[in-house]
Amino acid sequence: MKEKTAGILGGMGPEATVDLMQRIIRLTPAKDDIDHIHCIVDNNPKIPSRIKAIVEGTGEDPAPDLVKMAQRLEAAGADFLAIACNTAHYYYPAVAGAVDIPVIHMVKEVLDHLKTKVPDLDRVGVLASPAIEITGLYESIFTHSGIRVIYPAPDVRDTLFNVIRQVKAGNRSARVAKDYEGACAHLREKGAKLCIVACTELSALDIHPDELPLVDAAQVLAQAIVTMAKG
Amino acid sequence: MKEKTAGILGGMGPEATVDLMQRIIRLTPAKDDIDHIHCIVDNNPKIPSRIKAIVEGTGEDPAPDLVKMAQRLEAAGADFLAIACNTAHYYYPAVAGAVDIPVIHMVKEVLDHLKTKVPDLDRVGVLASPAIEITGLYESIFTHSGIRVIYPAPDVRDTLFNVIRQVKAGNRSARVAKDYEGACAHLREKGAKLCIVACTELSALDIHPDELPLVDAAQVLAQAIVTMAKG
Repeated sequence: MKEKTAGILGGMGPEATVDLMQRIIRLTPAKDDIDHIHCIVDNNPKIPSRIKAIVEGTGEDPAPDLVKMAQRLEAAGADFLAIACNTAHYYYPAVAGAVDIPVIHMVKEVLDHLKTKVPDLDRVGVLASPAIEITGLYESIFTHSGIRVIYPAPDVRDTLFNVIRQVKAGNRSARVAKDYEGACAHLREKGAKLCIVACTELSALDIHPDELPLVDAAQVLAQAIVTMAKG
Repeated sequence: MKEKTAGILGGMGPEATVDLMQRIIRLTPAKDDIDHIHCIVDNNPKIPSRIKAIVEGTGEDPAPDLVKMAQRLEAAGADFLAIACNTAHYYYPAVAGAVDIPVIHMVKEVLDHLKTKVPDLDRVGVLASPAIEITGLYESIFTHSGIRVIYPAPDVRDTLFNVIRQVKAGNRSARVAKDYEGACAHLREKGAKLCIVACTELSALDIHPDELPLVDAAQVLAQAIVTMAKG
């Protein structure tokens, strides 16, 4: 069976997209170039800020640019699409409605992963930008799963938001890592036995704190892309 | 002035393309996503092997696929193109002739870099796949520069070729690093005061041996892409 070509809506941020591509390569068994999957990647950091549109409520709507990007990837030969950003999945219906090829839904993939791999899970912490909580993106998918989604308290949420902004600005200092680990510890104290890394900037940080299992949405997405491409 | 969008012919190999994207990001001064440059990347590892076509003389011609990839990137909105593979520049005339947008020539950029940054250079070692020596790609560009291009002896060339194959197979062991450093030492003994890293797999290895300055063609290409995008 012919392998499928993946189209990736990226650039949100650009480094997180590179991190996703690296994960795809590592998850693909390969002895030479040809064993790897074909990915057409639009690493477009000029998409209007999801944060400004959702959190600050002042920014331009990113949906029209995401739709154009999806259509261009389809025209360029993608057989299916993936969106390399948790928050951008708020615009999933617009994107999926604008193309004739399947679009992987990262949050649905995460839920499927949890249901398959983590039995008896009743609550899960979410490490993400405030936009994820504001939009209720994870709740909307998890609503009938029996898994409750919990978020950090407002002060820790602000700290975590700053971690994301620092990663976007290229800062991966020890202080940034410490703040991230503090947010993980806080969610563990709030009763999370497991946390979802639900922001591709945090995925790119690639930190694994002690005593708290993490399921990384970017890793789950990378696996879904490889599986779909290989058929 | 509006920034330009880069189109990148990639996948030769896929990890080397990710390495180039990472270099582009690191070379771009940025405080947030929007400061980064827009890159449309066709990470296509299904392009017929340049090695098989040039070294073994048995493989399918990669030129038609490279041409199609270039035209698709132009149609997708790229304002200029770059080819993320030294050897594939053997097909540069076919690619450049098939589109109406500029195509950066990595080898020309390397020569410009050397002429500007390294005065009185009379000979330079080339760390590359045998396809580079067979095609005379570097000589064809360096011919009137006064800089002589030198290659490893056949046994070391074979060792270096194996290093490239190992990187393509995901092997970055200490042995691979040692073999690479051995090839560098050999070229230094042959009189190279400086070597060009002229294979993007070797760029992705990112090894800097003692006592031999390296100019990495991937790094020079990344800088050329950032400069062209920023205008």
